[in-house]
Amino acid sequence: MKVKEIMDKEFISVLEDQSVEEAAVIMENRKKFTTPVVDEDKRLVGWITSFNVTKGLREGKHKVSEIMHSKDNIVHVHENNPARLAVLEISHHKLISVPVLNNEGILVGVVRTFDIVQTLSKMYEVKVYKIFKAMEQELKGVSWDELMEASAIVTRRRTGEMVTAEEYEFRIKEATFGEAIWSTGGLEKFFVGLIAIGQLVTAKKVARARK
Amino acid sequence: MKVKEIMDKEFISVLEDQSVEEAAVIMENRKKFTTPVVDEDKRLVGWITSFNVTKGLREGKHKVSEIMHSKDNIVHVHENNPARLAVLEISHHKLISVPVLNNEGILVGVVRTFDIVQTLSKMYEVKVYKIFKAMEQELKGVSWDELMEASAIVTRRRTGEMVTAEEYEFRIKEATFGEAIWSTGGLEKFFVGLIAIGQLVTAKKVARARK
Repeated sequence: MKVKEIMDKEFISVLEDQSVEEAAVIMENRKKFTTPVVDEDKRLVGWITSFNVTKGLREGKHKVSEIMHSKDNIVHVHENNPARLAVLEISHHKLISVPVLNNEGILVGVVRTFDIVQTLSKMYEVKVYKIFKAMEQELKGVSWDELMEASAIVTRRRTGEMVTAEEYEFRIKEATFGEAIWSTGGLEKFFVGLIAIGQLVTAKKVARARK
Repeated sequence: MKVKEIMDKEFISVLEDQSVEEAAVIMENRKKFTTPVVDEDKRLVGWITSFNVTKGLREGKHKVSEIMHSKDNIVHVHENNPARLAVLEISHHKLISVPVLNNEGILVGVVRTFDIVQTLSKMYEVKVYKIFKAMEQELKGVSWDELMEASAIVTRRRTGEMVTAEEYEFRIKEATFGEAIWSTGGLEKFFVGLIAIGQLVTAKKVARARK
């Protein structure tokens, strides 16, 4: 996934010559805590946050140019950068949003922490059930009931918890991937559990074929 | 994971009687775009954002009580709620942060989108290599080279791409889980690929044992 796929293209921007009051109203109305400052060609020339605006209003500053951060101090990403670079930059510099430029240095979007939370959390909300359904399709010749039985056996072996196949099925219908990772103790452990289940059903299938 | 494990306990707060100017300075200095308003017992009574502050300054409002959202309109979570509830509330209501209360209704923390991005992105940054190492440990009697060979075969079958075992190993040493998911086309597909690899090495192991 590239930066351009997660960026907000409907971003707001202000001009250096605009008044601090005007910038404040635009940011209030569009509910943006930060906004890029651009020239007439949409080239990035600065950046303001609500902190610059409240300080500017308190100190009686007039123009955006008096309160903005200049271009040299602004972290930005390129539209074709991998999306995770924007996540890393935001995480590393503790930003709320980061401007996106194209090859010509024109501002084409803004990536906001909010958009990232939505993108990342979507994956966390995938139901574990869906992963098992994909597994059932992949493990040809293994029935759903066999898969649930093997899952209950592996869970009992690993956790000592006396869970039945029916209980296991009920559990994965409710649980999300995020919950599963947090309850098994991490991504690798979750996957290893699934691999163990895959091995067990495959072994049973082989044993059955030999009979 | 619970809300209290991801919340910021070093949050700022303001009182209803404080001036809008004072609130602005606190928020600027501590770089918070939002802040809870509390009473003397640290009970949540309101919420202000930088938008309330800039509007208040522009309109000459004096006290925090004149610009704040009242308690009834504030989305909040409980400290013992699952962390993902905070993520869902933030995502659903398009918030930047959400206050956390305890059983007594006392404000004990604030969950910010920034903290969530850090928590969620950590998982995305897990190296795929670590998942395969965990898989090697689980698949007893299968060597690392056999695992890489099987992985290259499965990749060739699925994508048509002529990758060798060595190239595959190099690739997973570099790749993160986030990249792997985005390049395979989703969580289920990534996992199904792993199951296919697990099946192939198991089949080879069984065939070898029969010889």
